[in-house]
Amino acid sequence: MEYPSKIIEKAIQELSGLPGIGRKTALRLALHILKQTEEKATSLGEAIISLRKDIKYCQNCYNISDSDICNICSNMRRDKEILCVVEDTKDVIALEGTHQFNGMYHVLGGVINPMMGIGPSQLNIDSLIERTQKEGIKEVIFAFSASIEGDTTAFYIAKKITPFGVRVSSIARGIPMGLDLEYTDEITLGRSLLNRTIISLPTYE
Amino acid sequence: MEYPSKIIEKAIQELSGLPGIGRKTALRLALHILKQTEEKATSLGEAIISLRKDIKYCQNCYNISDSDICNICSNMRRDKEILCVVEDTKDVIALEGTHQFNGMYHVLGGVINPMMGIGPSQLNIDSLIERTQKEGIKEVIFAFSASIEGDTTAFYIAKKITPFGVRVSSIARGIPMGLDLEYTDEITLGRSLLNRTIISLPTYE
Repeated sequence: MEYPSKIIEKAIQELSGLPGIGRKTALRLALHILKQTEEKATSLGEAIISLRKDIKYCQNCYNISDSDICNICSNMRRDKEILCVVEDTKDVIALEGTHQFNGMYHVLGGVINPMMGIGPSQLNIDSLIERTQKEGIKEVIFAFSASIEGDTTAFYIAKKITPFGVRVSSIARGIPMGLDLEYTDEITLGRSLLNRTIISLPTYE
Repeated sequence: MEYPSKIIEKAIQELSGLPGIGRKTALRLALHILKQTEEKATSLGEAIISLRKDIKYCQNCYNISDSDICNICSNMRRDKEILCVVEDTKDVIALEGTHQFNGMYHVLGGVINPMMGIGPSQLNIDSLIERTQKEGIKEVIFAFSASIEGDTTAFYIAKKITPFGVRVSSIARGIPMGLDLEYTDEITLGRSLLNRTIISLPTYE
């Protein structure tokens, strides 16, 4: 397709580099931006530039942050003895959205994936082991997406940190809310049986 | 949802202002941008800023352009006697994609829509009438999306320009390629009957 202007062509090319955005969507976005005020378009462009340039990674947990130590790590009210290990920043955001966790995080930056050439040394695993050893952590929770790679990573780290006397756990795998039992895959259903939760124990009168 | 950084929050807020992009998609885009090199992110941001700041509108046809006269209007090889009237730049791009049209364009910037408060004076209609009168145009083709507003606009302009001795036409309404006849709405099907095209005429031996 030919575009009437090199400027719009450049913008479409850049926008269509984003995930899930093809050239048609990019054109729609570009035409939308053209209809905005100059301030609004500039504000969007500058936010994108600043995002990559100004964002920092917490030196403690590797979560994205505005400063050297993120506001979760520097929050005195949070439980420093429980550590949740995640793959990515978006997992921290998702877990924070539940309001069910008040401990600390550790962002690995991925999971072990030999097929993609990602080994333990490319991830923030050494620092996790160091934290577990030095910071007096009592429990490490793995919160990975359900995949072979996630399980492998959890197993690998668990073996390394168990000697430090920490409890190691993983978030539950089971039937998600709203999903019919009959449509659930066999592995999930099998795990949900194995990891059943107890509702009541027998009472002896 | 709380974000771990004000910078990412700002970026998500800006990105989710784009059409079809919610906060979840904006977060996904922001995390994608974070994984890019700084040059790539800056290039995207600058393309967006430049798009709004540097783009011009052709003084002749109101299409977007890098210069005062767009490259369609300044192209000597195009037929200056046939003028296609469209609503928006994206329609020019779509029509150019067909490679079926070698005439000139005129971008109205919208269609007459009293419900939205858009009257003829807000559109580039006066300049269209002037062009039709002065530039020796032989045919004006309306290429609007099929809607009441498009039909109204075509009818309004047709009445104004017919006195100048131009042929006025509209792109055909009918069954699009790949659509089953039985699923086509009644108005389209009705129009496709009225505007049937002749395949062969009777021959008298």
